[in-house]
Amino acid sequence: MLGSTHGTLTTDSRRARVVACGEQPGPAVHGRPADVDDLDVSGRPLYGDVPDLDRFFRPESVAVIGASDAEGRPNTGVTRQLLGWAERVGARLHPVHPSRPAVFGIPCVASVAELPEQVDLAVLLVADPLPVIEELAEAKVKFAVVFASGFAETGEEGAAAQDRLAAAVRRSGMRLLGPNTNLNAFERFRDDLDGPAIALITQSGHQGRPVFALQELGIRLTHWAPTGNEADLETADFLSWFAEQPDVGAIACYVEGLKDGRSFLLAADRAARRKVPVVAVKVGRTETGARTAASHTGKLTGADAVVDAAMRQYGVIRVDGLDELQDTAALLARARPPRADGVVVYSISGGTGAHFADLATEAGLRLPTLSDTKQAELHQWIPEYLTVANPVDNGGHPVGDWRGRKIIDAILDDPSVGVLICPVTGPFPPLSDRLVQDLVDAAEETDKLVCVVWGSPVGTEPAYREVLLGSSRVATFRTVGNCITAVRAYLDHHRFTASYRSPLDEAPRTTSPSFRKAQALMRPGQQLSEHAAKQLLRAYGIRVPREQLVTSAAAAVRAAGLVGYPVVMKASGAQIAHKTELGLVKIGLTSASQVRDAYRELTDIARYEGVSLDGVLVCQMVERGVEMVVGVTHDELFGPTVTVGLGGVLVEVLRDAAVRVPPFTEEQALDMLGDLRGRPLLDGVRGRPPADVDALVEVILRVQRMALELGDELAELDINPLMVLPRGQGAVALDALVVCR
Amino acid sequence: MLGSTHGTLTTDSRRARVVACGEQPGPAVHGRPADVDDLDVSGRPLYGDVPDLDRFFRPESVAVIGASDAEGRPNTGVTRQLLGWAERVGARLHPVHPSRPAVFGIPCVASVAELPEQVDLAVLLVADPLPVIEELAEAKVKFAVVFASGFAETGEEGAAAQDRLAAAVRRSGMRLLGPNTNLNAFERFRDDLDGPAIALITQSGHQGRPVFALQELGIRLTHWAPTGNEADLETADFLSWFAEQPDVGAIACYVEGLKDGRSFLLAADRAARRKVPVVAVKVGRTETGARTAASHTGKLTGADAVVDAAMRQYGVIRVDGLDELQDTAALLARARPPRADGVVVYSISGGTGAHFADLATEAGLRLPTLSDTKQAELHQWIPEYLTVANPVDNGGHPVGDWRGRKIIDAILDDPSVGVLICPVTGPFPPLSDRLVQDLVDAAEETDKLVCVVWGSPVGTEPAYREVLLGSSRVATFRTVGNCITAVRAYLDHHRFTASYRSPLDEAPRTTSPSFRKAQALMRPGQQLSEHAAKQLLRAYGIRVPREQLVTSAAAAVRAAGLVGYPVVMKASGAQIAHKTELGLVKIGLTSASQVRDAYRELTDIARYEGVSLDGVLVCQMVERGVEMVVGVTHDELFGPTVTVGLGGVLVEVLRDAAVRVPPFTEEQALDMLGDLRGRPLLDGVRGRPPADVDALVEVILRVQRMALELGDELAELDINPLMVLPRGQGAVALDALVVCR
Repeated sequence: MLGSTHGTLTTDSRRARVVACGEQPGPAVHGRPADVDDLDVSGRPLYGDVPDLDRFFRPESVAVIGASDAEGRPNTGVTRQLLGWAERVGARLHPVHPSRPAVFGIPCVASVAELPEQVDLAVLLVADPLPVIEELAEAKVKFAVVFASGFAETGEEGAAAQDRLAAAVRRSGMRLLGPNTNLNAFERFRDDLDGPAIALITQSGHQGRPVFALQELGIRLTHWAPTGNEADLETADFLSWFAEQPDVGAIACYVEGLKDGRSFLLAADRAARRKVPVVAVKVGRTETGARTAASHTGKLTGADAVVDAAMRQYGVIRVDGLDELQDTAALLARARPPRADGVVVYSISGGTGAHFADLATEAGLRLPTLSDTKQAELHQWIPEYLTVANPVDNGGHPVGDWRGRKIIDAILDDPSVGVLICPVTGPFPPLSDRLVQDLVDAAEETDKLVCVVWGSPVGTEPAYREVLLGSSRVATFRTVGNCITAVRAYLDHHRFTASYRSPLDEAPRTTSPSFRKAQALMRPGQQLSEHAAKQLLRAYGIRVPREQLVTSAAAAVRAAGLVGYPVVMKASGAQIAHKTELGLVKIGLTSASQVRDAYRELTDIARYEGVSLDGVLVCQMVERGVEMVVGVTHDELFGPTVTVGLGGVLVEVLRDAAVRVPPFTEEQALDMLGDLRGRPLLDGVRGRPPADVDALVEVILRVQRMALELGDELAELDINPLMVLPRGQGAVALDALVVCR
Repeated sequence: MLGSTHGTLTTDSRRARVVACGEQPGPAVHGRPADVDDLDVSGRPLYGDVPDLDRFFRPESVAVIGASDAEGRPNTGVTRQLLGWAERVGARLHPVHPSRPAVFGIPCVASVAELPEQVDLAVLLVADPLPVIEELAEAKVKFAVVFASGFAETGEEGAAAQDRLAAAVRRSGMRLLGPNTNLNAFERFRDDLDGPAIALITQSGHQGRPVFALQELGIRLTHWAPTGNEADLETADFLSWFAEQPDVGAIACYVEGLKDGRSFLLAADRAARRKVPVVAVKVGRTETGARTAASHTGKLTGADAVVDAAMRQYGVIRVDGLDELQDTAALLARARPPRADGVVVYSISGGTGAHFADLATEAGLRLPTLSDTKQAELHQWIPEYLTVANPVDNGGHPVGDWRGRKIIDAILDDPSVGVLICPVTGPFPPLSDRLVQDLVDAAEETDKLVCVVWGSPVGTEPAYREVLLGSSRVATFRTVGNCITAVRAYLDHHRFTASYRSPLDEAPRTTSPSFRKAQALMRPGQQLSEHAAKQLLRAYGIRVPREQLVTSAAAAVRAAGLVGYPVVMKASGAQIAHKTELGLVKIGLTSASQVRDAYRELTDIARYEGVSLDGVLVCQMVERGVEMVVGVTHDELFGPTVTVGLGGVLVEVLRDAAVRVPPFTEEQALDMLGDLRGRPLLDGVRGRPPADVDALVEVILRVQRMALELGDELAELDINPLMVLPRGQGAVALDALVVCR
C-alpha cells in the first residue's frame, strides 16, 4: 500500500554475519552495521552482528588476574571455582599475581605481559580493573570479565568510572562482561541431561538461581550469562549468540533494564527467524515512565507498554514471575512443534476437568469437542454416564488397569489434539501412580505434548520426584496457572514463528519524496501551528479538511464560501494547546454573519487569554465517522513509537490505545487495532456503517513513515481526531499537533 | 437518604440462633426463618439458621449400614476407615448388616430398628438409600451420610431419585450429607498441630485433596465437608457452622455450583460478622450465562459477574487456582490482624527487591517509604550505597552475622510496617540458611506478619522443609504471585471486616407507599410502553422529563407548547425496542412545523415497520449530562440484581458496568461506581462540570427498592439513558424499558 506511494520497499533478507571479535572484518565495530545498506531511513541499524562468544564459553586458555589460594581470602573461593570450570571445559588456566610463585600448585606469572600464551579469556578479580584492561588489550586477550562492583550501580561517580572502563574496552577491540558481575557463567552445569537446553541471561545473579536449579528437576541448562552492569556485552549480545547454538531450545532472560532498545529488537528478530523461543521477565510494570508529553497520544501509553509491544512484535514471551519463567522456558525448550492447537484435558474427576477447562478457556486455549466416533471409542473403557467430550473424565477406576493407557493413546491419536493435559489434583497412589506411569510411557511414543499438573503442595511423592521428573518427555507443572501460561506460550510461539516475516526486511532505507517537503516545514525546538502541522500531514499524503488561514473577518467569510458551508473555525497559533477548553473552536457555522461573529469572538478570546495567533482557520466540516487518535511519541529506549487509540472524551478516560515500535508491517498495523477494546466501533454498532479500516491502516503506516524519516527531528506528533469515515470514504485528520526537537 | 422517603429502615441486628436439629424449637424448620420479621420485602430470608452439626462431626454413636469385613469388598475398606475415625472421635460404632453376626469383631444388628441405642450419625453404604432413610427417621437418627452415586449427576432419572430422597429427608427432620459424597469428613486429621485451623468445604472430594495435604506442611486442618450432590446439607450450612467454631481460623471452599444464592449470602454474612475469612474457588469464569435479556443492562453482565459481586459484597475472597486457595486460606487462618497496612520488602539482592516491589505495587499493595530516621538506623548495618527506603536491600553480607537479625527487628519495629516479606529467590546456604532462621526467630517475637517466598523450584532444602515449614509464625510461599495474592487478601479481609455493616440489617421489610401505585402499572407477562415504564419510575420518585402522550399532530404541537421547546418526539408502544435504530426518535425539534412533520414521519415509519403504537411522546429535551444506564435483571441464583453502567454507544461496546445483589447499602452503591473504568467521567473531564453523583446513587437505591418490592413480578427494568446532570441538578431518566413477569 505504502510501496506504491513512497517507492519500492526492499524485502531482501540478509543472512546473519558472524563477526569474530578481535578480528577486524572491514570497518565493522561491535553491533554496528558494516555499510549504509544496513541502516533504515532513520539511521538505525537493521541487522545486528552476532559476537562470536564461543571462546568466551569454551576458551582454550584463561588468565585469572588476582588469583589466590590463601585461606580466608574471598578470591580463593573464586579461583577454586574457576579452576574446576577450566578443567571441565578443557582450558589451560594461568594465575596472575604480582608476588605469589604459584596458586593451587599452578605457576603464577607476575603480570599480564608475562603470560606464556595469548589467552582467550581473562577474569579480573582486582578492585580496580581499568589499568589491567590496557595490559590485556596489549596482550590481545579476546574477553575480559570484571567482578568488581562500585560502578554505575553506586551513583554518578561510579558511572563515570564505568564510562572510562567502557571506553578503554572499545579502544581495545576486546569484549567485556561486567563490571559488577559474578561467577554464574562458570557454574557447574549438569552434563548427564539430554535434549534441547535452556540458556539463561540475567542481570542480577540471584534472580537466575531458580532457573539454574531446574537442573535438579532434570531440565537441562547449557549457559548462564550474568550481564551485570553491561559496560560492553549486553543482554542482546548473548541473546543473538544463544539463538545460534544448536543445543539451545529456549532462552530465558531476566531483564532489569535494557541498555539499548534497538539492539534488543535485532537480537529478538534473529531468535524469531531461527524459531528459538525467548521468554523474559522484564521488571518495570509499575514504572512511572518519566515521559512528559504535550500530546494526547503521548500520555496514552507509558514506557512499559512500549517494552511490552516491542517484545510482542518480535515474539518475545513476557512473563511476570520467576516461576513462570522457569515453567515456560522449560516447556518451550523441550516440546516439539505442535501437530494441532487443540488441547484436551483428561482427569480422574469431573470437577477437576471442569475447573481446568474453565481456566484454560478463559486464558484463550482452544478445547475442541471430541468427535462422536472418538467419544464412542473412549466409552469402550469409560462408563457411559461420564463426559468424554473434552474434558475427558474417566471417573477414576479405568486408571487402575490396562484401560488407562488405552484411553491416553486414544486421545493422543485424535488429529484435532495437539496437547494432552492431565491435572493430578491430589495424589492417591492406587490410581495416580499408575496414571502417571501410563502418561510417561505414552509420552515416549508420541510426538504430541503431554503435560501433567502435580497439584499436591507436598512434592516429595515418588510419582512426582521419580516418575514425572524422571521423564524428559512429560512437561510437569506444580500449578494449573503456570501450566496454562506455558501451554499458551508454546502454541503462540509456534503460531508466531510459523508465519514470521521480519518487519526489518520491509523497513524503508531511503527517504520518500515527501521528506523534502516535510523538512521545509519543521521548526527545530518549536510546536507548529495547526495549519503548518496539517501541511506536514498533507506532505505525507494524509488527508486534511479543505481549509484556509485568514487574518480578517472579511477574509473568513470569503474562505467559508470557498470551503463550503457549514464550516468550523479555529484559532491557529504556534503554541496553542487545549483549544476546545479555551473556547477557541466554533463548529457548525452556516452563514456569513455567523462566520463574522465567530472571527470576532475567537480573536477576542485569544487576546483575553494572551494567546498569539497566526490567524484563524476556516475549515470544511467533516462529520459522521469514528474518531480516532494517531500519534508519534519519542521513547527513551526505542526512539519514535506510533500510537493509535480511540478518540473522544470517553477514551481519554479509558486510555484505550495501542503502541508499536517502527518498523512494523501493514499486518502489524492492523493487529494494533485488534488490541483496542473499542475495536467493534470500527465495525459499526447500532446500525452505523462500518468505518474505512483500510484508510485508517494507511494513515498509521504513513505516520510510521513520518516517524522514521523525520526521526529524531520529530519530538511528538498527534492527529486528534482522525475522523475515519464509512468504508470506501477514507479518513481525515481534523486537527494535528507537531512538536519539533 | 432513602430512609426519609420510604419510612424508617430497621437496623436491629439479630443474634444467630442455633437450632439443634432433631429438636423442634417452636416452628423453626432447617434454614427457614422463624417468623415474618426475618423476611425482607421481597419475601427472602434475612437470617439463616445455623444447623447444629456438632453431633455430625463428633457423634457419640454411629451406625454403618452395609458394614463389611469381607476381603475384597469395597465396603470393607470404608468400614475400616470409619472404625478408625469413630475410635479417634470417641464414638460407639454399630455395624448394620442383614446376615453377618459381627464385623471386625463388633456385633452386628440386622436392621436399623434393632440398633441398641439412638445413634447420632448413620453412614449408608447401600446402593439404594431411600428405604433406609425411612427406617432411620423412625429411629430418630440425627444425621445420615449417603455415599451412593447415580443421582442428579447422571441425568434426569437420577435427579428424580434425588428429589425423592430429599423429600424423604425433609419429612424426617433428619439432616443428610450427600448423595454422591465420600469419606473425606472421616479422614485422619493431624492432631499434633497448633493454632487456628482451616475448615474445608468441597463438592468434589478430589479437589479438596491438596488443601488437606497442607497438613504435611504443618498447617492445621480441623474439618472437611464433602458436600456431594447437596440433596439436603449444602455449602452454606457448613459455612455458617464452621464460622462459629472457635478453632477455625479460615474457611476454604471449592464450589462447583451453588444450590441457592441467598443461603450462601446469609452464611457468608455470618462469617463476615464474626470476622472469619472465607476463601473460595468458584468454577464458572467462562460460564456462558444462559441469560436471554431484552434489556441493555441485562446483557452487560453475565452470571459469573453476579457471583463475583455477591461474594465481594459479603467479603468472600474469590481465587482461581487451588494453589491460591491453599496459600491464601493458610495465611488468613494463621496470621494475626495487621497492625498497619504497609508492606516492606526485604532481600539480599536489589534486583529481587525491585522485582517483588514492582509486582506488589501493581497488585495494589502499599510499600511505604521508610522514614529517614529508620533508613539511618538500617545503614548502621547496611552499606550506605544500598537502597533501604523500601525495598530494603542488604547486599548479602550483613545476613551472615549478627547484623541480619538487627535489620529484621528494626524493620518490624517501624510503626508504618504491618507486613515484612522476604523473597529468597534461590538458596545460597551460607546466607539463606541464617537469613531464614533469623526470620523464624524474629517472627516468634513480633505480632506482625512475616512472609518468606522460597523461590527454589526444588523444595527439598532443609531451610525450607525444616526451618520454614517448622514455623507456624512465618507464612511461607513458593511463588511471588501467590504471596502477593494472599497478602492482599489478608489486608483486604481485615479492612473489610473492621468496617463491616451487614446490608441485611438495613434491608427493607415492608413496602413503601410507592408500591401500591407501582402495582397498578404492572402488566404480567408484558413489556410496558415507554410512557408506562416512566410512570413506574415516577412512582418510585425517579425523575423523568416533562412529557405528554399524544395521538394527533395537532395534539403534538399543543403538547410541545406545554412541555417547552426544543422537544424530543418518540414513538410509544408496548413492544418497541431499538427505537433509535428504527428511526422512531426525533430530537431537537424547535418549531410547530417540525413537530407536525415529525409526528407524521414517526407514525409512517411505525406503519411501515408494522409496529403498533399507543401514541407519540412529546418530551422535554434534556442535555448536558453524563449518560448512564441503570437496570434490574433477574439472576437465576440470586434473584433480582441491579446493574449500573456508562451509557452511550462506546460503553455498549466496552461493557463498562457493575452489578450488585440486593440488599446493598448506600455506601455499596457508591462503591459500585468505583468499579467503572469510566468513573472519572462523573468527576468532569476536559473542563466539564462534575456530575450529580449523589443523585445517581439515589436513583440506584430507588431502583434497588423497586427490585426488592416488585420482586419476582419484575423481569427486567432498564433506564437507558439516565442523564446525570451537573452537581446539585439531579438525574433524569430519559428512556425506560420494563418487562413484567
